[in-house]
Amino acid sequence: MKVQGRPYRTIWQESEGGDVSIIDQTKLPHEFSVVRLGSLAEAAHAIRAMLVRGAPLIGASAAWGLYLGMREDSSDAGLAEACETLLATRPTAVNLRWAIERVGGALRDTAAAERVAVAARMAAEICDEDVDICRSIGEHGAEVIRSTWEKGGRAKPVQIMTHCNAGWLATVDWGTATAPIYVAHEAGVPVHVWVDETRPRNQGASLTAWELGEHGVPCTLICDNAGGHLMSRGEVDLLITGTDRTTANGDVANKIGTYLKALAAADNRVPFYVALPGPTIDWTLDDGARIPIEERGAEEVTRIAGRAESGRVEAVDIAPPGCSAANPAFDVTPARLVTGLITERGICEASQGGLAGLYPERSRGKAAS
Amino acid sequence: MKVQGRPYRTIWQESEGGDVSIIDQTKLPHEFSVVRLGSLAEAAHAIRAMLVRGAPLIGASAAWGLYLGMREDSSDAGLAEACETLLATRPTAVNLRWAIERVGGALRDTAAAERVAVAARMAAEICDEDVDICRSIGEHGAEVIRSTWEKGGRAKPVQIMTHCNAGWLATVDWGTATAPIYVAHEAGVPVHVWVDETRPRNQGASLTAWELGEHGVPCTLICDNAGGHLMSRGEVDLLITGTDRTTANGDVANKIGTYLKALAAADNRVPFYVALPGPTIDWTLDDGARIPIEERGAEEVTRIAGRAESGRVEAVDIAPPGCSAANPAFDVTPARLVTGLITERGICEASQGGLAGLYPERSRGKAAS
Repeated sequence: MKVQGRPYRTIWQESEGGDVSIIDQTKLPHEFSVVRLGSLAEAAHAIRAMLVRGAPLIGASAAWGLYLGMREDSSDAGLAEACETLLATRPTAVNLRWAIERVGGALRDTAAAERVAVAARMAAEICDEDVDICRSIGEHGAEVIRSTWEKGGRAKPVQIMTHCNAGWLATVDWGTATAPIYVAHEAGVPVHVWVDETRPRNQGASLTAWELGEHGVPCTLICDNAGGHLMSRGEVDLLITGTDRTTANGDVANKIGTYLKALAAADNRVPFYVALPGPTIDWTLDDGARIPIEERGAEEVTRIAGRAESGRVEAVDIAPPGCSAANPAFDVTPARLVTGLITERGICEASQGGLAGLYPERSRGKAAS
Repeated sequence: MKVQGRPYRTIWQESEGGDVSIIDQTKLPHEFSVVRLGSLAEAAHAIRAMLVRGAPLIGASAAWGLYLGMREDSSDAGLAEACETLLATRPTAVNLRWAIERVGGALRDTAAAERVAVAARMAAEICDEDVDICRSIGEHGAEVIRSTWEKGGRAKPVQIMTHCNAGWLATVDWGTATAPIYVAHEAGVPVHVWVDETRPRNQGASLTAWELGEHGVPCTLICDNAGGHLMSRGEVDLLITGTDRTTANGDVANKIGTYLKALAAADNRVPFYVALPGPTIDWTLDDGARIPIEERGAEEVTRIAGRAESGRVEAVDIAPPGCSAANPAFDVTPARLVTGLITERGICEASQGGLAGLYPERSRGKAAS
């Protein structure tokens, strides 16, 4: 999508055989900084230090990391070393492992002299596939936005609320929850987005508000607390979020706080859609009740970083010294609160039956297992 | 309640005829600073600059401000001047007007030579009345906490969640939502409090976590987003908040975000109690749907103040430059989501009938009007 009027992806190769560029997301929203990755070590650092984040983008970055590794040393030893280095950057990231297995596996079957070219081709493929998936999610979801606009007699912008950043910055382009918004916006359907700041890490304030604003989509930042009030006063037409994991029955694990917004949507009859690429469905879990929830560090709650008057980014403590804090990173929204799942194959009910309709090959596999 | 092991109120007279002391709440939780008010101007500044806040404490501070004004000039002109100065500090504060009318009215009927003594006596009375009301709320509410503990076989601490600061810092002592917690704690019922940080102004992180911690009540700070998850995993026994305004049918207006917690409590069968002094019931409103909601400045959302590494309190920007933000300060929780109202007269259902049972003299007045 656009930054300062120019179209970008979150990761790209400067030229054939050349370096790889990314946006340093740790500097957002205070500074737009493009970083050139010229080596395996630089790619590994970018993933580890979260210059790139979001499952799809982490996978794409790992694939490009293998390309950079091959450029330095395309021997079998070099390949093993590159896979190991990248896997260690964020050991629990599913997309990281998936991309390394896919590209690394193919490279093992490739002559050393061909590995640079094959790695570059496969990394580019992974990026293009992600763009295609997100774009398809966007097209299906945009129909919901358009029909909301039509039902309202095209009288006013469609008011959409989102939580966290499931935006193009988390993917290669378009995003998941934001894809329907960008597609609708491009198609001339007027939208306005309420952006939850998304404490404790503030991905809404620092990433979603930034990317929507740069692309020219009207948006307003709100505290996470405000959403229920806005829905109760009729200020929200649709709630759309992403998800980290969808279970076979349509329960969705997503950034902490999503469940509260889903409750408010249900209480005010605001439709709540969850946008997701099919591959993030976890067919091995029947429901979300037992998804283990990551407990992150207390300092994410007690300290906040931002741009100080000096212009530098600084962290400030907001709690009493020694105050204990709990920081569950995700919550689970039960399928009963979800109006529909927006996937690259279309929109379905958040239920076993709904998902089986769109992914018959997976649900058959499950029934047989 | 206790600070650094010593009992305090939020406002007190140092000695007969002497100055008035307060806690500078703008410095919390980073510094505990007692400020001595020696003049009408200093009292007015303390209210205007929010060194004191919370409806009951603002009323008490205005009463003591009149005393300080009389000490300087007890003539009719001095009295008029003192009333006017104090009224202008926070023109929309209902308790401010109430206290000034009560004390100012009595002083107008008092000879100038007696005014200092009468003002001091009335200010002390207002403080003692507030302490009595809060203490009674605490005793009624503590029964709910105790019975929860008993029902659980006294096996573990009662887990209580609260939002914003309806603590002793907002009153003269005990608080409203915190009064049942303090009374239960004093009576040896083990409690643990989940403290919502309460964005955007973070009164939970800066005031509630501080006051509970200083008094020795175990508590854990959480982001506002975390409450739904904790309730869904059985980590919360009771939700207790205060309220700014309760309508005749039991709807409650309270700090933005309360409605979301009430929804989660209902969805997980966690009892939700609202603690309030009877005088905050607005008998003129049939329900909360049309309560006007104050829209505060965007910078409360986009900037956060805290203790920087230098030790100084600094503000940092967390949003993209120029990002627009909305900041509704309150929301309305419908009575159907409220398990009970805890008042100084006892606990009742959040309904017209429930309130009429406790306040027959007011509801009769209403029916006749």
